[in-house]
Amino acid sequence: MEPLQDVQSQWDDRRLAIDKVGVKDIRYPIVVKDRSRGTQRTVASINMYVNLPHHFKGTHMSRFLEVLAEHDEAISIESMPDLLGKIRERLSAEEAHIELEFPYFVRKSAPVSGATALMDYRVRFFGTLQDGRYRMILEVMVPVTTLCPCSKEISQRGAHNQRSHVTVRLRFRRFVWVEEIIERVEKNASCQLYPILKRPDEKYVTEMAYDNPRFVEDMVRSVAADLEQDPRIAWFSVAAENFESIHNHSAFAFIDSATSQRAT
Amino acid sequence: MEPLQDVQSQWDDRRLAIDKVGVKDIRYPIVVKDRSRGTQRTVASINMYVNLPHHFKGTHMSRFLEVLAEHDEAISIESMPDLLGKIRERLSAEEAHIELEFPYFVRKSAPVSGATALMDYRVRFFGTLQDGRYRMILEVMVPVTTLCPCSKEISQRGAHNQRSHVTVRLRFRRFVWVEEIIERVEKNASCQLYPILKRPDEKYVTEMAYDNPRFVEDMVRSVAADLEQDPRIAWFSVAAENFESIHNHSAFAFIDSATSQRAT
Amino acid sequence: MEPLQDVQSQWDDRRLAIDKVGVKDIRYPIVVKDRSRGTQRTVASINMYVNLPHHFKGTHMSRFLEVLAEHDEAISIESMPDLLGKIRERLSAEEAHIELEFPYFVRKSAPVSGATALMDYRVRFFGTLQDGRYRMILEVMVPVTTLCPCSKEISQRGAHNQRSHVTVRLRFRRFVWVEEIIERVEKNASCQLYPILKRPDEKYVTEMAYDNPRFVEDMVRSVAADLEQDPRIAWFSVAAENFESIHNHSAFAFIDSATSQRAT
Amino acid sequence: MEPLQDVQSQWDDRRLAIDKVGVKDIRYPIVVKDRSRGTQRTVASINMYVNLPHHFKGTHMSRFLEVLAEHDEAISIESMPDLLGKIRERLSAEEAHIELEFPYFVRKSAPVSGATALMDYRVRFFGTLQDGRYRMILEVMVPVTTLCPCSKEISQRGAHNQRSHVTVRLRFRRFVWVEEIIERVEKNASCQLYPILKRPDEKYVTEMAYDNPRFVEDMVRSVAADLEQDPRIAWFSVAAENFESIHNHSAFAFIDSATSQRAT
Repeated sequence: MEPLQDVQSQWDDRRLAIDKVGVKDIRYPIVVKDRSRGTQRTVASINMYVNLPHHFKGTHMSRFLEVLAEHDEAISIESMPDLLGKIRERLSAEEAHIELEFPYFVRKSAPVSGATALMDYRVRFFGTLQDGRYRMILEVMVPVTTLCPCSKEISQRGAHNQRSHVTVRLRFRRFVWVEEIIERVEKNASCQLYPILKRPDEKYVTEMAYDNPRFVEDMVRSVAADLEQDPRIAWFSVAAENFESIHNHSAFAFIDSATSQRAT
Repeated sequence: MEPLQDVQSQWDDRRLAIDKVGVKDIRYPIVVKDRSRGTQRTVASINMYVNLPHHFKGTHMSRFLEVLAEHDEAISIESMPDLLGKIRERLSAEEAHIELEFPYFVRKSAPVSGATALMDYRVRFFGTLQDGRYRMILEVMVPVTTLCPCSKEISQRGAHNQRSHVTVRLRFRRFVWVEEIIERVEKNASCQLYPILKRPDEKYVTEMAYDNPRFVEDMVRSVAADLEQDPRIAWFSVAAENFESIHNHSAFAFIDSATSQRAT
Repeated sequence: MEPLQDVQSQWDDRRLAIDKVGVKDIRYPIVVKDRSRGTQRTVASINMYVNLPHHFKGTHMSRFLEVLAEHDEAISIESMPDLLGKIRERLSAEEAHIELEFPYFVRKSAPVSGATALMDYRVRFFGTLQDGRYRMILEVMVPVTTLCPCSKEISQRGAHNQRSHVTVRLRFRRFVWVEEIIERVEKNASCQLYPILKRPDEKYVTEMAYDNPRFVEDMVRSVAADLEQDPRIAWFSVAAENFESIHNHSAFAFIDSATSQRAT
Repeated sequence: MEPLQDVQSQWDDRRLAIDKVGVKDIRYPIVVKDRSRGTQRTVASINMYVNLPHHFKGTHMSRFLEVLAEHDEAISIESMPDLLGKIRERLSAEEAHIELEFPYFVRKSAPVSGATALMDYRVRFFGTLQDGRYRMILEVMVPVTTLCPCSKEISQRGAHNQRSHVTVRLRFRRFVWVEEIIERVEKNASCQLYPILKRPDEKYVTEMAYDNPRFVEDMVRSVAADLEQDPRIAWFSVAAENFESIHNHSAFAFIDSATSQRAT
């Protein structure tokens, strides 16, 4: 029997290289490193790409899945360079990209009662091997409470507050735990969220939020000011989105350490 | 040239009738009736189905789109029976179903400053022509503010509050405006939402919410108690979902007028 | 210090019972039973509700999370009655409801090359304890390929095909594995999906699909005819949605075993 | 009565400027320019931001909505600089950003029968006024059919095909119609999509797709090669995502005119 033709390896004469080509939205169980428990098992949504030189017609897409199937038990920030190297090698490419998104669970205890359960944070890794250089962006989305300083100031009683999503992206020089980023965001919020709150805890978080009002602008500034102090962090951005309890739209703020000049 | 074979009209011998068959997730601009402005133009997501007797292999899907293309300028609660009749006729079916979902815009003025803009509410129509009988369910989703009574009661200052989605479904005997349902929900909330709030308005809504605490349970009960009084309404359900500002999950409550017995 | 007031337990005089009240959209890691590997770890989105008698003002929402935190290592079809019993007991309710949704992973081998990796299916459990009776609905969503019989019949070459989602819901008298439902759907499709396909596999699935054309109507009928034969199944529904490759909308069909009469 | 305090205008001493602050996910009906009908009414999701100098504590969010409420009847590519100018002025900012996303409807006739209806395309405008300079990115997402060249080549009959989303982003020197971008993408696909297809049309599109196989790589290359020829276009990117009919994940390719070097 004749071998099946390899259409992907055929010559392409449009003379156009492709920046990224690959597979997108694969769901796969993964094991990630966890500061307190060693490892945790979760489920990721995964994208994997390589570049394609101008003279090749197509990519051998199945090879991405083969690499993934071999590595699913060892996904971590530390294993990203190795995974990217394997993708580049198996796909005969010069560049490789991987994007992972997964819920990351942290055990949290209520502030007064100590009642504990897991809470989920959305984490993303964006890893790139390009021009022989490895680069990684870590993203952590931390949901918190924000209470409006203007509403508190002008009102005789109460203050509107809501759930906010604070999303930090960063490149580090030396390893930073996901848990460290979560802590930085939570301590700068009006109050952090908890999976279980008994009555004394609810009193605590209500008063804590009322005593610590934060605009969406305050959230990005406070978190940015904190991240700036950390010599391990080479670059970062902070976005905050308040799902306003008084409007049917969000308030949003964003700082990028590369463009937002600090006044001197 | 030979005519193309009509595969859909072929005999099917599995002897199984199909409850619903048709097209789903069509986006189409529509014109709907509006209490204050006569009509408003919006964009709908549309599903259209018929039943299929056991002896036919398939449905002529293109005919749904033909009927839609002829009627897009006149979609309203009143035109639903006519639209369903056309679908049933054109598809040679006994039953017809149509589901419409669209954002419905209402001009709202801020409570103190009077600043006005449009606010969006999600509306759905579920229309059915079955056994010669027409039935319509109207759904309106109204976003509001809810402020927690427990949090207010046990805390020395402040109270957690958040955006809530209150979803009313109903069958009516006599016509009810979408705007009437919106008003019923908004007056039972801790406070309604507004597109524009200037500083004096923000003071107003903050204090209004603080003075009117509502559990998710209170929302569904108050709205249900109100709808019960309306002789035009034959059946209803009310669901409320609070996007809790102190948790990373929602609180939810639901009443169905057909199953939730009123104590006597 | 005075105890904090229990607002939820206060008397409510609106005399309206609530059908369902509880917590929604909790993400939590769970362990589910797996036919081939014993158990598998995945991540669920969870809703938990109870009924609320008319004389109580509110529900103690934190107790749902406490029950969940105690049971997360043992979620399965078999453990649902126990979990519902605990919820009912801890919330002092008469009825309890739980809804779980999670990706379920099955190891699949390519049909010719045998290359293996995991593929994800969406599974939902809807469990209810009501009037002293336990009821469970199992839902499995199986993505498959469908190839259009009409397109094949009328065209000189090729036939349009696409990814389809086939969603089976059922109540069983005796235990049925998720894997059994997946197999029933996949064998009735034009072809099943695979995580990895090498070139000989791609030839196989292309020809398999071309040789087994299926309308969206055929999908629901064939699966329904199969499920009807199984004495373990008390009730089922089958929905199929084709993400048409030739339209920007879907084709959809639906059979419910309780309403779709079989011709005799 | 004392005036309410303007908390937003207070001095902030963290000395950190904010890149973007504003409102997000506002739904609003808009009127956009349409090549064949003059204008069309649709519904947009809108984000509006300004920069915030380091010495101000907050932004006056309500002003964004005021500007929007004044301009909703005249949103177009041409009106963007004016709208951005108003936002910058009213918010006393140096920079202004607006992001609009809306379904754009085009009347399409089936290729043989001529049956016509509207089809939706997703359009986005990203407008920026920064350092006194106006810049606009136009994005158009065009859904098409792609048929796999490898599958066709290696199989004795049939070929897998699916719906694909091709997303073009561009900056232009001189005005380009949305309709022109749609046409460029559609003529490079295996076949374009249609809202209504009668039987002779279905034969036509099936054979057309079979005769014009395209990898996801081919889609981005052909569209890029076409856009390169247009002197009105200063920069572009093209992304293509195939919702593979044989897998439960997508194939994806991406070219950016700024980074993808053309071989010489």
